[in-house]
Amino acid sequence: MDTGKILARLRAQKPLIHHITNQVTISECANITLAAGGLPIMAHAVEEVEEMVAQAGALVLNLGTLTPTQVEAMVLAGRRANALKIPIVLDPVGAGATRLRSESAKHLLAELHIDIIKGNAAEITMLAGGVAEIRGVESISVSSSVSPLAAALARETGAVVAVTGVVDLVTDGTWLIEVHHGHPLMAAVVGTGCMTASVMACFAAVEENHLLAAVAGLVAINVAAEEAAQETDAPATFKIKLFDKLHGLAPHSLTARQEIKKRVIG
Amino acid sequence: MDTGKILARLRAQKPLIHHITNQVTISECANITLAAGGLPIMAHAVEEVEEMVAQAGALVLNLGTLTPTQVEAMVLAGRRANALKIPIVLDPVGAGATRLRSESAKHLLAELHIDIIKGNAAEITMLAGGVAEIRGVESISVSSSVSPLAAALARETGAVVAVTGVVDLVTDGTWLIEVHHGHPLMAAVVGTGCMTASVMACFAAVEENHLLAAVAGLVAINVAAEEAAQETDAPATFKIKLFDKLHGLAPHSLTARQEIKKRVIG
Amino acid sequence: MDTGKILARLRAQKPLIHHITNQVTISECANITLAAGGLPIMAHAVEEVEEMVAQAGALVLNLGTLTPTQVEAMVLAGRRANALKIPIVLDPVGAGATRLRSESAKHLLAELHIDIIKGNAAEITMLAGGVAEIRGVESISVSSSVSPLAAALARETGAVVAVTGVVDLVTDGTWLIEVHHGHPLMAAVVGTGCMTASVMACFAAVEENHLLAAVAGLVAINVAAEEAAQETDAPATFKIKLFDKLHGLAPHSLTARQEIKKRVIG
Repeated sequence: MDTGKILARLRAQKPLIHHITNQVTISECANITLAAGGLPIMAHAVEEVEEMVAQAGALVLNLGTLTPTQVEAMVLAGRRANALKIPIVLDPVGAGATRLRSESAKHLLAELHIDIIKGNAAEITMLAGGVAEIRGVESISVSSSVSPLAAALARETGAVVAVTGVVDLVTDGTWLIEVHHGHPLMAAVVGTGCMTASVMACFAAVEENHLLAAVAGLVAINVAAEEAAQETDAPATFKIKLFDKLHGLAPHSLTARQEIKKRVIG
Repeated sequence: MDTGKILARLRAQKPLIHHITNQVTISECANITLAAGGLPIMAHAVEEVEEMVAQAGALVLNLGTLTPTQVEAMVLAGRRANALKIPIVLDPVGAGATRLRSESAKHLLAELHIDIIKGNAAEITMLAGGVAEIRGVESISVSSSVSPLAAALARETGAVVAVTGVVDLVTDGTWLIEVHHGHPLMAAVVGTGCMTASVMACFAAVEENHLLAAVAGLVAINVAAEEAAQETDAPATFKIKLFDKLHGLAPHSLTARQEIKKRVIG
Repeated sequence: MDTGKILARLRAQKPLIHHITNQVTISECANITLAAGGLPIMAHAVEEVEEMVAQAGALVLNLGTLTPTQVEAMVLAGRRANALKIPIVLDPVGAGATRLRSESAKHLLAELHIDIIKGNAAEITMLAGGVAEIRGVESISVSSSVSPLAAALARETGAVVAVTGVVDLVTDGTWLIEVHHGHPLMAAVVGTGCMTASVMACFAAVEENHLLAAVAGLVAINVAAEEAAQETDAPATFKIKLFDKLHGLAPHSLTARQEIKKRVIG
């Protein structure tokens, strides 16, 4: 696995990444997409999402401040993306916190083929049918190890499932990859989870193996976070540096630094 | 009054702060909530606000980019919050500038028990029935001293009323507290008013005396602003440092620095 | 042409700049307005835009994340602005990328007198009836030189037309002015285009010659960008410094640094 090689391809191709996303971190998602090497386009009107996604290299669906109208736009854009084989990354923000969020996430999984699902432990546990405690958009606790649940969700949906945490887990139902990168300051900034989904989408736009794309995206943003955290311990300054470090990340340095563990999951 | 003690409690409890807020400063409000010690959740769909607020420690209603649908969501969330004794902070941004803003603010005050109203002099004057000049969301001039009007509004609504300005005033209709903190650079950054309401909500979630909570919130963000302004005189850099300083603010240092004056209002 | 003189007037008058704009860069547009010397007000509800714009010195219409309802609000606000001789700046973000964007831009041009149209080469080419390739909101290529198309659009609409690029072009159909300022880092930050429209609106609010206002706005934000780029080559840090440098820009320094070329267009 050579994450830097995919990053180099991303920088060369500059794929358009269409986001239908929340109001809180929409600016951050756009800027992190640009920093990674993609071109962000944020468009959510039902009247234009199908036309817009047809031009894109990947589609991000983020439920952070969802409304039923926005979910309708996601289904329209998602169907077109599926028809055109454009990869979709789903970030089920707060799934488990309210019925609207849980049901919308399940609705999208039923109506669309999702290529990558990225969530925290509680969100993934809930989508996999497990029991989790979630407060707002924070994962408080999960009833059991999330790995088998993530693998089951991957097998059920055909999606690569990424679970963010101290160690990030990525699985396609057969393989389980651990990503040992990142920094606690990421939790002190609103939107690092959303930004992670955007970066994954950038990589999925240029790498057909979505297990690899999800891992490479995780490594990239987390290595950038490590570099940022070497220069500050203050969260807002860290966020600025996170963008800067991802923008400046050299492909060869990404490959050199990647620390991942891959194994077959039972 | 020991503001640091409340800050310590806030950091320990990490209450969820539900915001129904504007599109301009939604990211800033989320990040300042996290910096203060709370967990932000931004959710505005009428389909989920009641369920979301039930998990929260406080609710922020901010009229910055209001629409009638958003006001409807505020009423739904606010009624549930009232039923569950979850404190509500109202930021009537631009009340007085348009009929929609003035009437929405009054509608919320009529339908809900608001625990803390935070506004600038013109907004508070208008809500209290006085005459004020407002341009957009800026307080231009008020017809007379705002203190008695704020106290009258507090008595009429049962809310603690906080008036931000060079010296911030907080009153419950009986007591008037002056907060002598802050820095002129706060006016050079969009959203410091909104952020102040979010920080007050963090404190109100862990302190039942809402007069004290409002004062402590004001002291906290304004002391952080003073610290930030010691390191820069440029507004965007100041904003980054404001988050960082609030995040790093030690409870004992807050108590040591607090400069407030309390007196009975006539 | 003395750009600094207009900047001095802007700082003295602090005009209210009403924005009906996108969700991605709404915070950036508000902050850059404040940094330039205006007072931003973001309001998009159809119930209040007419009342709000009547208090404003200029109106910005930005199609970045448009919906049909938002376009309706733009028409309402725009008609009132026209009636009151309040200048309108249109930023047709992504015109050419989807039918909704192209048709909305044309609808606004048909229903309203627009004072300044600011776009990239593809957006302006499309509005002028030429052939352009646009991907998302990025101008990929245009079929021919944009200058005559921009001039034709200016003559057809009565608007001053500004085309941003390595060299910015501004034309009223008779005169063509080249602005030789800016820095490549502006393209590494989401929203510098939107911010440019906001700064132009600030200048248009205090300068009746809108050709001059558009040029002065371009010079101001681009000179600030040059100053920012002298201190960093990292995009997120650059964005912070862009606000700071515009805020700190002295009128006499703006005049001293302006590099513009003016000629009659054939």
